[in-house]
Amino acid sequence: MIHGEVGSKLKVMLGGGKRSFYSPEHYDKGRRTDGRNLVEEFEALSKGNTFVKTQKKLLDVNATETGRLLGLFSKSHLHYHLEQLADPENKEPTLEEMTQKAIEVLETEEQGYFLFVEGGKIDISHHDTMARIALDETAELSKAVKRAREMTNPEETLIVVTSDHSHTFSVSGYQPRGSDIFGAAKAKGQDGKPYLALSYANGKSFEDFYNTETHEREDPTSLPTIGDFDQLFPATVPLESETHGGEDVGVFASGPWAHLFTGVYEQNTIPHIMAFAACVGDGLTACDKE
Amino acid sequence: MIHGEVGSKLKVMLGGGKRSFYSPEHYDKGRRTDGRNLVEEFEALSKGNTFVKTQKKLLDVNATETGRLLGLFSKSHLHYHLEQLADPENKEPTLEEMTQKAIEVLETEEQGYFLFVEGGKIDISHHDTMARIALDETAELSKAVKRAREMTNPEETLIVVTSDHSHTFSVSGYQPRGSDIFGAAKAKGQDGKPYLALSYANGKSFEDFYNTETHEREDPTSLPTIGDFDQLFPATVPLESETHGGEDVGVFASGPWAHLFTGVYEQNTIPHIMAFAACVGDGLTACDKE
Repeated sequence: MIHGEVGSKLKVMLGGGKRSFYSPEHYDKGRRTDGRNLVEEFEALSKGNTFVKTQKKLLDVNATETGRLLGLFSKSHLHYHLEQLADPENKEPTLEEMTQKAIEVLETEEQGYFLFVEGGKIDISHHDTMARIALDETAELSKAVKRAREMTNPEETLIVVTSDHSHTFSVSGYQPRGSDIFGAAKAKGQDGKPYLALSYANGKSFEDFYNTETHEREDPTSLPTIGDFDQLFPATVPLESETHGGEDVGVFASGPWAHLFTGVYEQNTIPHIMAFAACVGDGLTACDKE
Repeated sequence: MIHGEVGSKLKVMLGGGKRSFYSPEHYDKGRRTDGRNLVEEFEALSKGNTFVKTQKKLLDVNATETGRLLGLFSKSHLHYHLEQLADPENKEPTLEEMTQKAIEVLETEEQGYFLFVEGGKIDISHHDTMARIALDETAELSKAVKRAREMTNPEETLIVVTSDHSHTFSVSGYQPRGSDIFGAAKAKGQDGKPYLALSYANGKSFEDFYNTETHEREDPTSLPTIGDFDQLFPATVPLESETHGGEDVGVFASGPWAHLFTGVYEQNTIPHIMAFAACVGDGLTACDKE
């Protein structure tokens, strides 16, 4: 991400993973074993290269004075947005803030840009059957997309929103409009107990929802964790990590050539369509037609 | 469907529900209580009106000699396609055959036509957690769509494929390509037992997959029903009828104005776009622009 044929061309890099950039002698949680300090190397490469490690410093970055921008806001993954909200000491930016600053810096490029924004914690929370967090992280991604659309011109910027896979997550139970999506379904199960509208086909929560003494399903609305932001949701099969789902996922697009993103196709088609629309790469592009 | 402002304009009607057209004196399974025989009334309305009750008679219908076409092939719902295949006495047509004949008859209309084809048994089989049947019925719908696309010109016929809702159905477990989708996932559960790649958030199958004596999950691959065409698939919550799912469903289209079917919108938008493309109704239509 710092040097080399690909890495040296990455202009904006924002997220977590700080420990992978430092050896322990430069950062106590660093886990490089080669003694290098990649942040220092990055800053030394060019005067305009800017490194930030807090939300405040990121928001203060002056886009026109910045060459490459590296922001590392957490030792490992960034925290869940709901954890950030609950932490008075939080110094991590939101996905929306990172997206905004990235576009500010990238739009100074005369030749245009390619920006990849991942709501990466949606997947992680689903693997732990934490549906409340997963939906909040999805809302955070939605805010980032909204911001990107506000900051760009649909006549010239293609925005593609998709997923690399689904999860085994279901919304069920005929809940009336306006009801709490994290609450119980309208009717009860055949065992006379309520059931939650949200659940998973598998995951670590399996045992939480079965009473091992009575060998009956628990009333999920009576569990002590109900309503906690990191509450687990029920799973059919006990697995340490909930699995990905296998069905087709949606692809949504706006801007030039957005109409090519329609129907069902193999996921490896997506970057080819992006390259076509952006007139980059060795294949046929939209510019070849002009 | 036979008389009246709307019914008298329906040109092709094919499916089940025969008992609702007859009183018991005309058909022993009829359940009308008004003594009427709607099939006889239909035939008497016009010389071209054609009634058929078997696959063979349907396939023999001469489209150019047919006015309205009524086909009733079963007392109640048509049987599952897999049941039809297994029955040497089967006289019911497939969805593809009904679609083909419907288009043959409708394409004699100079003013064009609107045809609604429903893979109606997908929903019914999911409600019973019969995933094998549900996927087979989905494949049957797919064949019907393929046939419709082969018989029509994409320059003049808009084809829209969608669903009115999903089910709580998951595909999970990282199965390798080429493996049996109805079989077990790649890894085992934390209880050391295999689990099926396909399952539901709720449904009548709940108890089949738990051993009420040992109070443990059953090894689903050892159940006597495994491999049966009407095998049930596991459910997290015991319900008599598996519920619908709550997420957005896909909409896929080809033909004129197909590009309007993209992104996410309320389902009531779909008929308005169809009317726009077909230049029918009181709203703005594509023809208003010419």
